[in-house]
Amino acid sequence: MLSVYSKNLENAVNEIAKLPGIGRRTALRLALHLLKTDAEEVGQLTDRINRLKTDVCLCRKCYNISDSEVCDICANPKRDEATICVVQDIRDVIAIENTNQYSGLYHVLGGVISPMDGIGIHQLRLQELFARVETGAVKELILALPATVEGDTTNFFIYKNVKDKVLKISTIARGIGVGEELEYADEVTLGRSLLARTDFDVAYRKQS
Amino acid sequence: MLSVYSKNLENAVNEIAKLPGIGRRTALRLALHLLKTDAEEVGQLTDRINRLKTDVCLCRKCYNISDSEVCDICANPKRDEATICVVQDIRDVIAIENTNQYSGLYHVLGGVISPMDGIGIHQLRLQELFARVETGAVKELILALPATVEGDTTNFFIYKNVKDKVLKISTIARGIGVGEELEYADEVTLGRSLLARTDFDVAYRKQS
Repeated sequence: MLSVYSKNLENAVNEIAKLPGIGRRTALRLALHLLKTDAEEVGQLTDRINRLKTDVCLCRKCYNISDSEVCDICANPKRDEATICVVQDIRDVIAIENTNQYSGLYHVLGGVISPMDGIGIHQLRLQELFARVETGAVKELILALPATVEGDTTNFFIYKNVKDKVLKISTIARGIGVGEELEYADEVTLGRSLLARTDFDVAYRKQS
Repeated sequence: MLSVYSKNLENAVNEIAKLPGIGRRTALRLALHLLKTDAEEVGQLTDRINRLKTDVCLCRKCYNISDSEVCDICANPKRDEATICVVQDIRDVIAIENTNQYSGLYHVLGGVISPMDGIGIHQLRLQELFARVETGAVKELILALPATVEGDTTNFFIYKNVKDKVLKISTIARGIGVGEELEYADEVTLGRSLLARTDFDVAYRKQS
């Protein structure tokens, strides 16, 4: 698609096009935009990106991303240390934090058990989770893994290993999305939302 | 949208979200992808981007982007030096090059006359174009500016200034796009494509 009159432009486009969801056309648009942008601003962009690799690490307690050894969530004395929410990915931590409904800690597994993708129990941070439970400090474990076969498998594996050591184990509710029409929901979701029906008072208390 | 648990991540997302067409959600996705990517590959991306500002300049003849003082197109002895195609932007050079239908040189104006946007004749590389014409080496000038009021204004301004010095001045054809249905074309385009109807032999020779 690109001619060779600027090797530097072509190199930049090639690199940008490696990013997920960015095709060559978008990469070219971005590269041409950067060409016109102040050198200082471009320098700031590349500096911030480089710092992602040099200055960001994983929290040694919950494996969330962090600028220091222990992340701000784990280090926050206001968070409830007795509750751990198990998630697949950093993205899920961000999503749950954005709800402002959760004040406990997290445990980022790094994926779910998926033999098809070569992800077994040793590729995930499961032993690290069990070690946290082993200390006896955890009263409630919330499993917030994806509603897939792999997510369910992982849920069962965790449940089997911790059920005698934690007082309460729950999974996030599966049901009709807020604002969603019943007629468009699939049967499995609708069925689950009937089985896991919520007490009226509880439902409306939770929403407010 | 983002909490403060990684200032470095937030900074990177903020910078990436400044790019055109990239919202905060996409920026976050890209930043998290970069977090997982090898440091070496991320370094290559940022290095290539930085080089856009340090190693790319404008060709001093046609104002196309170039890695050296004169771009590969102007420096190519196989290109027809007597024909100059006037375009608005570097992007248009790339688009025309990709057609493989043009073997002349270019002149990148840097925009079109648009008083509403504060772009007058002194903000564009019009004097530079007239200087190229003045040498007498240009036999044909092809105006490939956008089919807008501003593009037409610029076309007329250039025409007025060079009509006595260039043998042939043309604009690219306005008409129905290849593969486009007539019923969906707007009336102005359809009208113009009738007025500028092409001789049958010429039309089919050009396509092959």
